[in-house]
Amino acid sequence: MRKKVSETRLYRAEMNDKILGAGFKEFNKFFALDTNAYQPGAISVQNKELMGLVGSMVLRCNDCIFYHLDRCVTEGCSRQEIYEAMHIALVIGGSIVIPHLRYAFEMLDELMAAGEGASSAPAQA
Amino acid sequence: MRKKVSETRLYRAEMNDKILGAGFKEFNKFFALDTNAYQPGAISVQNKELMGLVGSMVLRCNDCIFYHLDRCVTEGCSRQEIYEAMHIALVIGGSIVIPHLRYAFEMLDELMAAGEGASSAPAQA
Amino acid sequence: MRKKVSETRLYRAEMNDKILGAGFKEFNKFFALDTNAYQPGAISVQNKELMGLVGSMVLRCNDCIFYHLDRCVTEGCSRQEIYEAMHIALVIGGSIVIPHLRYAFEMLDELMAAGEGASSAPAQA
Amino acid sequence: MRKKVSETRLYRAEMNDKILGAGFKEFNKFFALDTNAYQPGAISVQNKELMGLVGSMVLRCNDCIFYHLDRCVTEGCSRQEIYEAMHIALVIGGSIVIPHLRYAFEMLDELMAAGEGASSAPAQA
Amino acid sequence: MRKKVSETRLYRAEMNDKILGAGFKEFNKFFALDTNAYQPGAISVQNKELMGLVGSMVLRCNDCIFYHLDRCVTEGCSRQEIYEAMHIALVIGGSIVIPHLRYAFEMLDELMAAGEGASSAPAQA
Amino acid sequence: MRKKVSETRLYRAEMNDKILGAGFKEFNKFFALDTNAYQPGAISVQNKELMGLVGSMVLRCNDCIFYHLDRCVTEGCSRQEIYEAMHIALVIGGSIVIPHLRYAFEMLDELMAAGEGASSAPAQA
Repeated sequence: MRKKVSETRLYRAEMNDKILGAGFKEFNKFFALDTNAYQPGAISVQNKELMGLVGSMVLRCNDCIFYHLDRCVTEGCSRQEIYEAMHIALVIGGSIVIPHLRYAFEMLDELMAAGEGASSAPAQA
Repeated sequence: MRKKVSETRLYRAEMNDKILGAGFKEFNKFFALDTNAYQPGAISVQNKELMGLVGSMVLRCNDCIFYHLDRCVTEGCSRQEIYEAMHIALVIGGSIVIPHLRYAFEMLDELMAAGEGASSAPAQA
Repeated sequence: MRKKVSETRLYRAEMNDKILGAGFKEFNKFFALDTNAYQPGAISVQNKELMGLVGSMVLRCNDCIFYHLDRCVTEGCSRQEIYEAMHIALVIGGSIVIPHLRYAFEMLDELMAAGEGASSAPAQA
Repeated sequence: MRKKVSETRLYRAEMNDKILGAGFKEFNKFFALDTNAYQPGAISVQNKELMGLVGSMVLRCNDCIFYHLDRCVTEGCSRQEIYEAMHIALVIGGSIVIPHLRYAFEMLDELMAAGEGASSAPAQA
Repeated sequence: MRKKVSETRLYRAEMNDKILGAGFKEFNKFFALDTNAYQPGAISVQNKELMGLVGSMVLRCNDCIFYHLDRCVTEGCSRQEIYEAMHIALVIGGSIVIPHLRYAFEMLDELMAAGEGASSAPAQA
Repeated sequence: MRKKVSETRLYRAEMNDKILGAGFKEFNKFFALDTNAYQPGAISVQNKELMGLVGSMVLRCNDCIFYHLDRCVTEGCSRQEIYEAMHIALVIGGSIVIPHLRYAFEMLDELMAAGEGASSAPAQA
């Protein structure tokens, strides 16, 4: 797996540890709420992660895009499904989303090439 | 069906007609692209509309929320599925989404009570 | 008290009841987290509400502006404090904030004239 | 001239007076800066107002759209110029801009029908 | 020409090729629509690119700012015109735009120093 | 003091000099207005800087977050106060703010470790 992917995951994990270990319990509650939103339910985990991807792209947040893309690949979403979700985000959000589409394409290739998805570490959007 | 729902649909239809009939063909192309994004594909129409709902809520656009909620109900999404999508949007977008959650709850009850969804007229987000 | 203020409060209270009574517990957790953020702490409630006002104005959410302005008046913030917070929001957010400054001025006069602030009902941003 | 146009202008004028008369001089400085941005310069007033329209549409602010559209019509921008600027905004901002495009079309017809543009009162975005 | 400019252009071109070659035709349609928006029309290409710059700055997208600035310089916009458009964006978008103004100034100097603008390769915002 | 902090300050100072020395006086006026917004008044400088931090976090601007965090530390805000302001921003802005919370935590540790705050150079958000 390329460095960019593993480094992005590592930075996220380290900083999340710092936040969750800061002794400010409201941060922990928010992170728990965030994790719960993507648990299996009436909507499948795959589709929830694709929804997280759409939300991240229209709000133009690369770190969030990386995380949900990583989760989508781990959960077994196909390239076609990911493209369709990306296109919904592109149409909703407009050309301003294109730089994030470029980033998403770059990361998707790396994540798919790695043949595996997210680390087992707990993570937040 | 309550007035608010039918009036919202009517205004949308009338104004879309005005835009699409203005003789500026690029508008028509954009609207066609928008319609295509929600056609059946690797992702089901139900899930695509739920994704449209998430995108609309995090970007805080009531007209867009109404449209995708209307489509979700028409396509047979359950209340539980809609709540789960709304919750993803709430967590991603934060408390600033709450006023739009209130609007969505208000409209959802009206749409569900009507026992039917969107008019057959073509519509855009 | 003028109608606009009481009606805005009433709609908020009714819709919040609907959301919190929907049986989807994650919504309740988010609302609790939201309420907690403005409790007394190292920062005073007055300043926390002014921070909520700044956040609401730069994100251009009138319902949120109303709520935090209502809370600011209830907590006894002075006009000068409110103007200074509004100005920080205006400078951060730019002329796009001006329509919300107009709304805030309109509501502030009504809230100040009422000689009292928010209803005792629990409320969320 | 239809009511909607004159009422929108009146509310703006009244509330601007309230803000500018509040005795908080920083507000006045911001408004002056805003007015100056659209004065004649290397870029013509027509094109500056069209730029204001684009900025207002991608940021999805109806009050700002109304103001710049009103100014565009007053300054003699053609329908074709306005459509081209609207299309740039639509492509940049995506389908989330469509509800504001509907509003802009509605207002444009009223403003064009009136055969005249903005009132002579000083105004801010 | 400095490295930053050429590298930014190269990354954009490579990733656009990847997106446009992915076999998902809706992406291609969106990119074509985007390109069309800046073609000569009732508004000159120079002013359209300046509008693209304003839209990019108020939405705070550095990649988009770079692209439209590059195009503005290529099309022969003067420094004064670019400053006036930047100022409209600064006033509309507020101090939150300042970091992007810094980026734009940095890039503008490099682009102007190069004595030439964008590569001849097709590009998207 | 670690490099990241000093380099971030240096780049800001250099680019601000470039903007303020460009001979376009409206930029100078905007920067002056921005500086004035955080002067002592009815609200303390500490709380104004915390408000600037909240505004910067909900609008997700790392450069702005750095600047206001730097100012907060210089003005003697406690970790607890900064955490409470960050939490208000997190709840208002949602999980999309988390990557900026990670950045803020990273910078806060560096700024606190340095035992001092912002350079004496004038700076803008």
